[in-house]
Amino acid sequence: MATAGKVIKCKAAVAWEPNKPLVIEEIEVAPPQANEVRIKIVATAVCHSDLYYLLEAMPKDGFPTVLGHEAAGIVESIGPGVTEFQPGDKVIPIFLSQCRECRFCKSPKTNQCEKSWFNVKHDGKESRFTCKGKKVQSFTGTGTFSEYTVVNQIAVAKIDPTAPLDKVCLLGCGICTGYGAATELDCLIVHQTAGAKKIIAVDINPEKSEKAKVFGATDFVNPKDHDKPISQVLAEMTNGGVDYSLECTGNVGVMRSALESCIWAWGVSVIVGWTELHDVATRPVQLISGRTWKGSVFGGFKSKDGVSEMVKAYLDKKVKVDEFITHNMTLDQINDAIELMKHSKCIRTVLNISPE
Amino acid sequence: MATAGKVIKCKAAVAWEPNKPLVIEEIEVAPPQANEVRIKIVATAVCHSDLYYLLEAMPKDGFPTVLGHEAAGIVESIGPGVTEFQPGDKVIPIFLSQCRECRFCKSPKTNQCEKSWFNVKHDGKESRFTCKGKKVQSFTGTGTFSEYTVVNQIAVAKIDPTAPLDKVCLLGCGICTGYGAATELDCLIVHQTAGAKKIIAVDINPEKSEKAKVFGATDFVNPKDHDKPISQVLAEMTNGGVDYSLECTGNVGVMRSALESCIWAWGVSVIVGWTELHDVATRPVQLISGRTWKGSVFGGFKSKDGVSEMVKAYLDKKVKVDEFITHNMTLDQINDAIELMKHSKCIRTVLNISPE
Repeated sequence: MATAGKVIKCKAAVAWEPNKPLVIEEIEVAPPQANEVRIKIVATAVCHSDLYYLLEAMPKDGFPTVLGHEAAGIVESIGPGVTEFQPGDKVIPIFLSQCRECRFCKSPKTNQCEKSWFNVKHDGKESRFTCKGKKVQSFTGTGTFSEYTVVNQIAVAKIDPTAPLDKVCLLGCGICTGYGAATELDCLIVHQTAGAKKIIAVDINPEKSEKAKVFGATDFVNPKDHDKPISQVLAEMTNGGVDYSLECTGNVGVMRSALESCIWAWGVSVIVGWTELHDVATRPVQLISGRTWKGSVFGGFKSKDGVSEMVKAYLDKKVKVDEFITHNMTLDQINDAIELMKHSKCIRTVLNISPE
Repeated sequence: MATAGKVIKCKAAVAWEPNKPLVIEEIEVAPPQANEVRIKIVATAVCHSDLYYLLEAMPKDGFPTVLGHEAAGIVESIGPGVTEFQPGDKVIPIFLSQCRECRFCKSPKTNQCEKSWFNVKHDGKESRFTCKGKKVQSFTGTGTFSEYTVVNQIAVAKIDPTAPLDKVCLLGCGICTGYGAATELDCLIVHQTAGAKKIIAVDINPEKSEKAKVFGATDFVNPKDHDKPISQVLAEMTNGGVDYSLECTGNVGVMRSALESCIWAWGVSVIVGWTELHDVATRPVQLISGRTWKGSVFGGFKSKDGVSEMVKAYLDKKVKVDEFITHNMTLDQINDAIELMKHSKCIRTVLNISPE
């Protein structure tokens, strides 16, 4: 491409400081360095964790930054040493890397990667973004609220060239590892695929009942309809408790309820919702009696392999994606999209950044 | 036997109220009712959880009671419907039942039993003990601080007739599910058997270092020797954290450290030490990143089957038991035995109640 090897000037939504609206700026995106890929973002969704870091959890030295980590795009150019990608490839950047070389990547026991942003904290120096002469960071190493971004190849998945990028962008995070409203519904699909007989969706928003059923829930329980603790309600519905529970809100009180809703002898509760701000707690006897408490990043998928497979599954109509998209907007409307999410008025908003 | 069908008058250590010395009393032990077995106790050990309930955790209506749940004895008589036992059988009563009929007993996923004292709270009405005209409860359904006790057959294991009861009594709880000092050492054995390369014993009592090595520890770490948190010390010793950790103290701070000492991507931490009084907590990210938090009652063994097998393993010299016994006393000395344990001056004290 004519832009290869050159700095690209383009639009991005910059978060200059915590808890303030993002600002649409012209930024400079330097060419990819060794092992890096520069990507033209076609579509990016807004995820609860972008919001969570913007409003609450980002370390003080995390600004200015370009948020965004649930996107799809097209490779514009590649840096030295990149053999897996070439310009024109359709790709999804991922916040969790898969280097294929570390002890974690080589083990079937985990989808962690020792080189992941999650472990090796990404710092500003590794970003290729500049704005008004200032270095701008790239959130989770993906920084997708931008027309162009640069990502290390260990965190980029090549996907089927027929995939519609304004839909499959959601597979970059939201499917079973997203946050908030949407993800409870994601989890239903997983349960259904795994052959669960009874799938109980729990949400304090009654409007989600119908959507839950679309995604396979057999029952919907609103804790506000009950005086008893929700764990007791679920125990009574299931002869002692559920076999598995998934917590998707990032609320430590809900995490506790989800664990305690499991049957004591063998129940397994998985935490999917992200929070770093508070402790989660339970009585030890809840575990000693036989429960297991686990967590999951990115649904347990090896990230690059998983995304490519999920895109195929979507194209084969084995995974629902379109149904999650309640709004489409442009990059300029990003603060409106954030407001929708803040007030739980959307499942997912997709920002259409560039045409494919 | 001449006593069959009759009330037996014998000695027992009665806990009349919380946090007071036990009193050696003459009690009356009624004949076994349907599905019950009356046992002459030969030897009983004192376990931390007897202490824990006496001093802290017993519900107010849990007194008066006969404590004790780590014992071995000989069947004196049987109630109606008992076919598995006959007078003269050597047995070990167990705080965890195995009815072989409930959904838990039929599942390989758990060693819980729906009919267990642990689940169906035992109440005074089910005890066969009386003292001075008052009903006396039977702690965990076993009440072994007595010359005779009555236990439901679902919580009694028949053992090899050649087993020395003053040793194998420890297999009624202490091996891998005991509490306090002894149990860290138990866990070492399990680890060694499972083929762990590095086994790190952690204890704030430096005197336990030598004993830990007898039981197979390759390393001993005393948190008091380090300024850093113990989880960081262990991470540095093991390239990021241990694969498995076992917590055996019943201290919720130690439970948290044990979890956080595991490698984030796949570490598994198992809580063995019992406490009902406090919450245990961690940051959700500790689990989300890949750790698993579990608990274990009675080491995960199906209780009756497990005890019988562990006795055989002891007779085949595959399991160490004798090395845990640091003191031998009589029932009259029970308060001295409790003091020893309170001040961590013993590993296990065995009370010799009756000759075999």
